[in-house]
Amino acid sequence: MTQLLRVQNFTVSNDGFGAGDGQSLETPFGHADPRELMGWAVSTASFPNRTGPGGSRGLEDYFTRDFAHGIGAEIMGAHKFSPYRGPWADHEWRGWWGDVPPFHTPVFVMTHHLRPSFALADTTFHFTDDQPAVVLERARAAAGGQDVRLGGGATIIRSFLDADLVDTLHVAVHPGELGSGARLWESPDELADRFHLEVVTGPTSGVRHHLFWRR
Amino acid sequence: MTQLLRVQNFTVSNDGFGAGDGQSLETPFGHADPRELMGWAVSTASFPNRTGPGGSRGLEDYFTRDFAHGIGAEIMGAHKFSPYRGPWADHEWRGWWGDVPPFHTPVFVMTHHLRPSFALADTTFHFTDDQPAVVLERARAAAGGQDVRLGGGATIIRSFLDADLVDTLHVAVHPGELGSGARLWESPDELADRFHLEVVTGPTSGVRHHLFWRR
Repeated sequence: MTQLLRVQNFTVSNDGFGAGDGQSLETPFGHADPRELMGWAVSTASFPNRTGPGGSRGLEDYFTRDFAHGIGAEIMGAHKFSPYRGPWADHEWRGWWGDVPPFHTPVFVMTHHLRPSFALADTTFHFTDDQPAVVLERARAAAGGQDVRLGGGATIIRSFLDADLVDTLHVAVHPGELGSGARLWESPDELADRFHLEVVTGPTSGVRHHLFWRR
Repeated sequence: MTQLLRVQNFTVSNDGFGAGDGQSLETPFGHADPRELMGWAVSTASFPNRTGPGGSRGLEDYFTRDFAHGIGAEIMGAHKFSPYRGPWADHEWRGWWGDVPPFHTPVFVMTHHLRPSFALADTTFHFTDDQPAVVLERARAAAGGQDVRLGGGATIIRSFLDADLVDTLHVAVHPGELGSGARLWESPDELADRFHLEVVTGPTSGVRHHLFWRR
């Protein structure tokens, strides 16, 4: 079995931004409102962070239900892990996700500011300043034969696309515009030469789901 | 966690038939051509019976990928299990699926013609003439806390719908007509009073995927 590198449930604005400007502890997505951007996912029954019952079980529940399915490791960028820039003053920060992060696998955080690995529940965070191909090799080795999820943000996904390491991408395009921020693309057409593409629209959300797989 | 009863990837013709007339050993779907009816699923990378590489990874791959996900048991009708009618002459027949059936769980076959349980690889077939509610209770107990898949055919799905035991249904509607056979519905509207419904069309296949979940 090939171990794929998969982008799962990554959401961008209609103008291609995965997050706004000005990320901080209070605004993890900068000037973007994550409740709006990610609303299509939050409303589903299988959203990983859902605590109560209810939620829709239509098209978009297939996407959130698939988030962890067959995934043995995640690779993420420094800004997905933390709002801080520069060297660590201490190691108090352990991510945005509380005591039980929604990953449940090894996670490789790509950063110039290394720190020791640590575990939170069944998620273990590792920190690396290696190149994408090397990080992917490490993540595959840690994934127990399963696929690797490329968790974002936009900059990290771009760097793996530039190195032609990505096998499948699900990118949800929210109808709103952000104007600036971390850009994934000018247009989905940029990937047309290397990937098959199917687009389906959420009947309730109006979000356009772009499903790419390698040609 | 609630254990749902789920119909997964069940395909009907545009006029509502899950199989044609005249099932036999050579024609498991009667006068319907399963390569046509199920073409949308067979062409995906995750189709359970796929033996080679390749296959699409767009919308419809999410459906086939989800076939076994979170499922701990299946309930099926006698005609899904076998082309034979009436009492068993012997117990040579062990299903259509060869030595490794694609279920990998306990399977409960609803039939008036009982025979002893048997295992094939990691699938165990049980035979029961109980009512739907009782069979569901047994399947839930066997499912190890996971959901139960209602595998069809159309007659069995109707009997569980009539008893209001079904929680979610994915019914793929192929554009072709069959004219006669085992009918699931006159129209999907019949379920509108009890279920939410989203419909999405396969961009390549033209198959309309109906996703129902209980109100």
